[in-house]
Amino acid sequence: MNPARDADELAHSLLPDDADVLASHAHDESRLTERATPGVVLAPPDTAAVADCLRVAGRRGWSVVPRGAGSGLSGAANGPEGAVVLSTHRMASILSIDPDERLAVVQPGVVTGDLRAAAAEHGLFYPPDPGSVAFSTIGGNVATDAGGLCCVKYGVTGDFVLGLEVVLADGRVLRTGRRTAKGVAGYDLTSLFVGSEGTLGVITEITLRLLPAPRAPLTMVATFGSLVAAGRAVTAVTTSGVDVSAVEIMDRTTLTAVDDLTRMGFDGDVAAMLLVQSDGPDAGDALATVASICATADALDVAVGDDPEEGARLMEARRLALPALERQGDWLLDDVCVPRGRVVDLLAHVEEVAADVGLTIGVFGHAGDGNMHPTIVFDEADPASRAAATRAFESITARALDLGGTITGEHGVGRLKRDWLQRELGETSMDVHRALRAALDPAGMLNPGNLFDGPDRRPEAGPGSRG
Amino acid sequence: MNPARDADELAHSLLPDDADVLASHAHDESRLTERATPGVVLAPPDTAAVADCLRVAGRRGWSVVPRGAGSGLSGAANGPEGAVVLSTHRMASILSIDPDERLAVVQPGVVTGDLRAAAAEHGLFYPPDPGSVAFSTIGGNVATDAGGLCCVKYGVTGDFVLGLEVVLADGRVLRTGRRTAKGVAGYDLTSLFVGSEGTLGVITEITLRLLPAPRAPLTMVATFGSLVAAGRAVTAVTTSGVDVSAVEIMDRTTLTAVDDLTRMGFDGDVAAMLLVQSDGPDAGDALATVASICATADALDVAVGDDPEEGARLMEARRLALPALERQGDWLLDDVCVPRGRVVDLLAHVEEVAADVGLTIGVFGHAGDGNMHPTIVFDEADPASRAAATRAFESITARALDLGGTITGEHGVGRLKRDWLQRELGETSMDVHRALRAALDPAGMLNPGNLFDGPDRRPEAGPGSRG
Repeated sequence: MNPARDADELAHSLLPDDADVLASHAHDESRLTERATPGVVLAPPDTAAVADCLRVAGRRGWSVVPRGAGSGLSGAANGPEGAVVLSTHRMASILSIDPDERLAVVQPGVVTGDLRAAAAEHGLFYPPDPGSVAFSTIGGNVATDAGGLCCVKYGVTGDFVLGLEVVLADGRVLRTGRRTAKGVAGYDLTSLFVGSEGTLGVITEITLRLLPAPRAPLTMVATFGSLVAAGRAVTAVTTSGVDVSAVEIMDRTTLTAVDDLTRMGFDGDVAAMLLVQSDGPDAGDALATVASICATADALDVAVGDDPEEGARLMEARRLALPALERQGDWLLDDVCVPRGRVVDLLAHVEEVAADVGLTIGVFGHAGDGNMHPTIVFDEADPASRAAATRAFESITARALDLGGTITGEHGVGRLKRDWLQRELGETSMDVHRALRAALDPAGMLNPGNLFDGPDRRPEAGPGSRG
Repeated sequence: MNPARDADELAHSLLPDDADVLASHAHDESRLTERATPGVVLAPPDTAAVADCLRVAGRRGWSVVPRGAGSGLSGAANGPEGAVVLSTHRMASILSIDPDERLAVVQPGVVTGDLRAAAAEHGLFYPPDPGSVAFSTIGGNVATDAGGLCCVKYGVTGDFVLGLEVVLADGRVLRTGRRTAKGVAGYDLTSLFVGSEGTLGVITEITLRLLPAPRAPLTMVATFGSLVAAGRAVTAVTTSGVDVSAVEIMDRTTLTAVDDLTRMGFDGDVAAMLLVQSDGPDAGDALATVASICATADALDVAVGDDPEEGARLMEARRLALPALERQGDWLLDDVCVPRGRVVDLLAHVEEVAADVGLTIGVFGHAGDGNMHPTIVFDEADPASRAAATRAFESITARALDLGGTITGEHGVGRLKRDWLQRELGETSMDVHRALRAALDPAGMLNPGNLFDGPDRRPEAGPGSRG
């Protein structure tokens, strides 16, 4: 008998505990991360219900794993065996959009693409556009500080979060931030919760800053015969100050995979392709400048589209990078970010590693930010292939650190890079992390095993473990 | 005998303890805040010396008040009697400017204007431009999350801080953030220290994001016969999406004071003036649009300058607002921020309050952000005038909260608005603030009496109190 079933106070939130429900809430889209079966899935309908859930969990010593759409790539929604999974999918309303103040107030379960569409109806723009924009939720985006293609011009999710409502581990409801354009009253608690991956509280409402809608972007495509030439172009574009809204790169491996999928017909001499967009008032002039920069950097071919729809089609090829590589096998997606000038060094290292471990590794990503997604294609069922993938992953992540970069540009640490966090931040920073976490969640109830290294605090501490 | 004098380990940092040195480090530029004489002033030359200072202070139970240029307006650099004042003025080097990565690494004592000039030499731009830009320091700007005229387009200081080196209360040296464009590894500790007003650690190094230098801005001036008309124009400009880099307002009282100073010759019918700048590629077109918006909002007079130098002269009138009001008496400068659409309501309230308390109150500020600086002119030597100024200040601040605003847009809480912080944030948020503070500075050694309400933890706990 499952004790959560007996808790009248959680009736408002309980999902049926059949095997399908439990299995479909057991993990995110990450690979090579620990997974376990939840004890129960709660889907509270409102903030008060979230507070009830956390208070009950606290009293009973259960671990709680907050969860959006489960589209994360770092294992941050993978809980310990028998834990409570708390899904936000029943809190999915856009509460208000204020065109005069350019604000949106939303619940965490709103799908990011739906918010973008709703803002557009008011002539407004919510820039963050992670690859998962069509299915990931704002709550998950805030919890990971998600990025996307827009970041080179507009910044990341956190740059648009003005305020939050958060339920703390003990069930208290905290409001952070403000509804004004500026404000410095007290500590920046909003930013502390953004990117905290469910370890400090459960986000139940988000106030977002919106922008006036820009023009539909135009797109330039340039191909290069070498990674070095492409890298030279990226550096020249980003230091030129020209107004660009996306600077994306795909390497030969990725282009070949996309070509296999789409039959677009890429030239075999192409080592890398740059896709650059501009949505500014002078988009045409801006891209003409970018095209000239690419030509100077020995591009094989350069084309500037004068039609936004054509540009959208070209950018679709970039969005197909992961699905295209996915057709070749299982994949492990890295998310390192290096100084812009070191992107080429990283790409060259990935080529070496791929040859070394004997696996296909495609690289695509946000070249304008230095945020790259080396994608290792392997066979999860084959222990040798898994080991090779792990070796490649570790070598690439280590190289990113050596290049002055970070282990994660936008996907987060989760369980996948828990051990790496300490390597990047060092002992003093980890101690400060632990102290802050202890200040807000002394029992370590929220998302144990995530972010911090070491074994889960209490792998047995969920309702399922007693069921 | 002063025990700090005996501490060999602090010889590297001790300033002479003559009365002038102590008096000139006793307080910032705020009015009606408690002031006291420091026990000793330390000016450590480097990070290791800062760590020494904090370790010694911790051992001896001294309070430490970190201090930049002392140009703050909230009393955040006013320490308790006998405290240690730790000035960053000997750590004033620009350590590096990297044009390719568009980064600057600076020490906290660098004057903000000097950094802006150094960036400009590389064709780069550090946007934050608080009114004190010519004399305030980057360290102080980070500690208060300072703003300025640029914020409507570029954001505040914190939007440009990528990483920090911070000495914690116990002397440990923490590095936060990154040198890459994006990065989400761990909690956003950088943002936690930005705006923490010296209560969580001493900032010893700052990594800043720079932008490509924009064009020299053009300027539009519009005058209005009523506050309501000016407010209508502000709302229309900010919702139009036109690319503007400053939207400043001055009311009749401020304009009259500036006119008394400059003899520029303002029309007596003018109730408010808007100064709008654009530094975009289409600045001329942008300002033509703004001018047309202002005309539609019944502006008395509209003029667009086609010469950046002329624009700079006009903006100088805005920068003279405070000096002009200062000539009329002592001043108490408020820093509320309201939703953009409520600026007019705030201005109308200020007019009522001025009539009610019988004092001159000029209002100027960053209308595009809703961040207003009502400036109460009074006679500090006259208790009745002081009381009237306090009454006006409280009424304006309360009204800002009622309008959905915040007590401080860019100056910080300090001692001036310590009691108001609780009113804005509520008990749960204050509890979280206290818990985070206790996690990093359990003894409450750093800047006691700042931000948090209640009496100073140990007003006697400085070397001076034993001297």
